Amino acid sequence: MDYVKLKEEFKTPFYLYDFDLIKSRFLQLKNAFKARKSQIFYAMKANSNLSLLQMLARLDSGFDCVSIGEVKRALRVGVKPYKIIFSGVGKSEEELEQALKFDILYINLESEEEMLLLENVAKRLGLKARISIRVNPNVDAKTHPYISTGLNENKFGVELEVARKMYLYAAKSEFLEPVGVHFHIGSQLLDISPIHDAALIVAKLLRELKALKIELKFFDVGGGLGVGYEGEEEPCLYHYAQGILANLSGLDVTIGLEPGRFLVAKSGVLVCSVLYEKITPKKRFMIVDAAMNDLIRPSLYDAYHEIVLPYTKGEVSPCDVVGGICESGDFFAKDRRLAKSKSGDIVLIKETGAYGFSMSSNYNTRPRICELALENGAVKMVRKREKFEDLIALEEEFLENL
Amino acid sequence: MDYVKLKEEFKTPFYLYDFDLIKSRFLQLKNAFKARKSQIFYAMKANSNLSLLQMLARLDSGFDCVSIGEVKRALRVGVKPYKIIFSGVGKSEEELEQALKFDILYINLESEEEMLLLENVAKRLGLKARISIRVNPNVDAKTHPYISTGLNENKFGVELEVARKMYLYAAKSEFLEPVGVHFHIGSQLLDISPIHDAALIVAKLLRELKALKIELKFFDVGGGLGVGYEGEEEPCLYHYAQGILANLSGLDVTIGLEPGRFLVAKSGVLVCSVLYEKITPKKRFMIVDAAMNDLIRPSLYDAYHEIVLPYTKGEVSPCDVVGGICESGDFFAKDRRLAKSKSGDIVLIKETGAYGFSMSSNYNTRPRICELALENGAVKMVRKREKFEDLIALEEEFLENL
Repeated sequence: MDYVKLKEEFKTPFYLYDFDLIKSRFLQLKNAFKARKSQIFYAMKANSNLSLLQMLARLDSGFDCVSIGEVKRALRVGVKPYKIIFSGVGKSEEELEQALKFDILYINLESEEEMLLLENVAKRLGLKARISIRVNPNVDAKTHPYISTGLNENKFGVELEVARKMYLYAAKSEFLEPVGVHFHIGSQLLDISPIHDAALIVAKLLRELKALKIELKFFDVGGGLGVGYEGEEEPCLYHYAQGILANLSGLDVTIGLEPGRFLVAKSGVLVCSVLYEKITPKKRFMIVDAAMNDLIRPSLYDAYHEIVLPYTKGEVSPCDVVGGICESGDFFAKDRRLAKSKSGDIVLIKETGAYGFSMSSNYNTRPRICELALENGAVKMVRKREKFEDLIALEEEFLENL
Repeated sequence: MDYVKLKEEFKTPFYLYDFDLIKSRFLQLKNAFKARKSQIFYAMKANSNLSLLQMLARLDSGFDCVSIGEVKRALRVGVKPYKIIFSGVGKSEEELEQALKFDILYINLESEEEMLLLENVAKRLGLKARISIRVNPNVDAKTHPYISTGLNENKFGVELEVARKMYLYAAKSEFLEPVGVHFHIGSQLLDISPIHDAALIVAKLLRELKALKIELKFFDVGGGLGVGYEGEEEPCLYHYAQGILANLSGLDVTIGLEPGRFLVAKSGVLVCSVLYEKITPKKRFMIVDAAMNDLIRPSLYDAYHEIVLPYTKGEVSPCDVVGGICESGDFFAKDRRLAKSKSGDIVLIKETGAYGFSMSSNYNTRPRICELALENGAVKMVRKREKFEDLIALEEEFLENL
């Protein structure tokens, strides 16, 4: 990739996504489950750029949405409602109503309270709501506490006994139709055995329900496939699939998959430039033109991202790579061994395709950066850089006469 | 405050700022320094809403900006350039150029490298750049590591010896004019003695420079005044001022003050509603319609915010107050003793006027919420709620024919 040319054309900082890599990972995952019916629902919270969604939709991807805004993104790029599912612990009544009207595939319920709310909404609209229930199998995903979601102490899902009760209730309701079961025990799992443990537990529930004449069509195993940010070996997709499928004998279900990070993280690079280096007696700081408002993962999750200066040669020594925001939490890497750089040198912050742009903000009145995509060897823009005028557009009219 | 009425009119969630409280704190701080010339430069990174800036500008406030976007915000509300200063470790060449062209009061330099860059820019434009240097007095502010900025291991400022060298260089330069000195040792300081220690150290530098015929006009003590988020006693402004002034005898300087959080934190409340409560065997969760994208401080800094349900009565018991975003890091409070709530109950997340909206994002495709202000007894809107269309506006044009 000729980053110098890209910088000339688009200026830094920008995100660049390799759409071809995303396609290839999508097909690999799909292929791992070819022995059974399966449907990938891309978890767009990882990266919801419309062009990226359009590209995945053309591969026949479904979409896992966690807000009505995400549902609308899918619809905006032409996804059929029966390829959209709606998850999340905080759906409002208004969102549930819209989801029912859009006639999406199903709604993932996170609690009894939510089921009763949805039933009421469906009743009011004279509709029958297709539902899945997020079961909390209480297995420890052994990941960062902020992205571990499968333990009883988390806010997600319901216990097995509660789920059983809910299915029995829903099966009898005039306004609810149980069609699936769902679990998701955490993000960024490099050891996938907890997913297999969870699948075993949840498949048992499916058999119990089947004996009660409640036949679910979707067995949604969530996401969570880890990415080798620090060069760790990634889970083998064949074993991942086999370990799940092994638990499903005798069940006629479609496997639902919700990869987010797995599909997009490695595809992305945050391309920025060195503003200058600052040498203090204790530290060398490489100050770049991107900042924590563009990528908050190092600050929020203590996340590791590889950093490469493709055109900078020389002896390496430890330095902190930081942004220009006025807090010490604004860093991309600490004590990373990098060559001495000069103003304008290009810096790649790698594997930032997931939870990069989607979590970005305007902190310090910094316009959000543009997004580019590489597809079939060509680079194109997929989101424009914000302008100052965009940032104040919703405030200006309230100013009093100056 | 009748939050029920506000909710009817504006829906939740929203931020509400008490402009009258901000005014009162501004005047208290100004008054504490009345024995000397002083100028408050509001650190707008805490909250840069245009109407808020306009209100402060009318009180004759100056503005501390950390990006050219923030400079433009100040100019947009009619602030005179000589009331604007520009700080921050990551100013780009383009930003420096614009700041010089706008003819702002001075630029706070954070390193030798930046000084040389600025000198070059000024030379190219045929201008003389007024500068101040951020000195790092190496005192420990004893605050959260992410907002501690006064130690030599931080990316901010320069050591005393370096500052001395820089002033000597600048004084001789045709394109630089040293006019001030600046320090800022950290945010949210409840013990202000480190600020006094720093003032003593930096005043000594001023006297040395005076002996060398370099007479600085601005002695900028930064911000950092702590706020009693958990009911802690706040620093006494009189002692704060006296402890600084005591170090300045014989120096004819204007005191620069950069309060951000101090002015606005307590003025703000994030008003949201309960979606529903979820009871699990281990926890009670109160799920509200605001989330970490609206207020990231609890998740990012483990910050404490008082939570009040003004219309909900009954026995209290521990619960987690969380948002609907799909990660366990999305919480506002853990194990807080609150009464049992029901759907629709109003929840106040207090003291969120600083670093609340300014750090908010569209994570999970959640539109940013609206901002309201209370002024002279009346509530008015100061920023509109985002719409879905606003979120995709910069992406849509790149979609391929559907």
